Amino acid sequence: MKKSQISKEALLDVANDIVFNEGSENLNIRTIAQRANVSVGSVYNYFPSKSAIVFALVEDFWKRVLQENLKEVPDNLNYASYVSSIYDVLYKYADQYQSLFISHYKTMSDEDKRTGLGLRDKQFRMFDQQFLKVLNQDETVKNDVWSETYTPKDFNRFVMMNILTALRTKQNSISILVQTIENVLY
Amino acid sequence: MKKSQISKEALLDVANDIVFNEGSENLNIRTIAQRANVSVGSVYNYFPSKSAIVFALVEDFWKRVLQENLKEVPDNLNYASYVSSIYDVLYKYADQYQSLFISHYKTMSDEDKRTGLGLRDKQFRMFDQQFLKVLNQDETVKNDVWSETYTPKDFNRFVMMNILTALRTKQNSISILVQTIENVLY
Repeated sequence: MKKSQISKEALLDVANDIVFNEGSENLNIRTIAQRANVSVGSVYNYFPSKSAIVFALVEDFWKRVLQENLKEVPDNLNYASYVSSIYDVLYKYADQYQSLFISHYKTMSDEDKRTGLGLRDKQFRMFDQQFLKVLNQDETVKNDVWSETYTPKDFNRFVMMNILTALRTKQNSISILVQTIENVLY
Repeated sequence: MKKSQISKEALLDVANDIVFNEGSENLNIRTIAQRANVSVGSVYNYFPSKSAIVFALVEDFWKRVLQENLKEVPDNLNYASYVSSIYDVLYKYADQYQSLFISHYKTMSDEDKRTGLGLRDKQFRMFDQQFLKVLNQDETVKNDVWSETYTPKDFNRFVMMNILTALRTKQNSISILVQTIENVLY
């Protein structure tokens, strides 16, 4: 007999298992329902479409990456080291999640595509704010670096764009970016 | 009566006029033949496909941009100023040529797509080399900037990637990149 009750989080865990163990091409509502031992309708209660599941998975993932790495940031960490260590984490997982997002993106409705891009912007802002916080708290930055036309916010955005480009082009090292940050800041 | 003889360059000029005056969506072999007052077969003699014309137009354009800007580079120009001034030129034209390339890219054969991407790589290397030459000739660069793991070649590639990203995301200014270059080099 199928269970009628299941939490949204439990369904996401099941979806996550499918993506990581069987590949994102095997992710669909029927499979999730089977693995969770619930009806297809129960899955639809939480997720009106496959896109909704993909969005939830991607959002959940980046939130966890950020939270875990937030916890680990020591008070005296400098910005350059932070950028370097976060990149290693992002690089490790980004590929998997990019492929999840992109493989479904092609078959999404226009509305879902807009939602997906909005979600990506939201994740970007989340990282952007976290990185900026670390930069602002970095007490080892030289006094004369910033000006009205060269602010921590501008510089941080510049670094973020470089990180995105590096992820997109699958660079396993951002050593030139990190050295550039060090040359500018310290 | 149709002329039977026309040069490849003259056909490219006609194609160029069509793209700039009427938009790239109006570019096709029949129109080029009509405007050049030659037979369709004469166009095919030089360009076996529409893709071949698109490639020739794009290649011709970037070659001209580079040559014109090569001529204008004064001997004492520093790298940061060079990057800044070239970006303004690229920004002005890239949009037009990107749209030409992208609008045709979608309908290209797989072989033409590979050719197109190879051509783009070739253009990138052409710019990369030119920028590196200016960097290596820049006598105002501090003595202690470079090391075995932070070479002019690495740094120049980093700058090139930033220029490409800025063009792709249609940033009309790269002031943060230029200021970062100045902070690192001078």
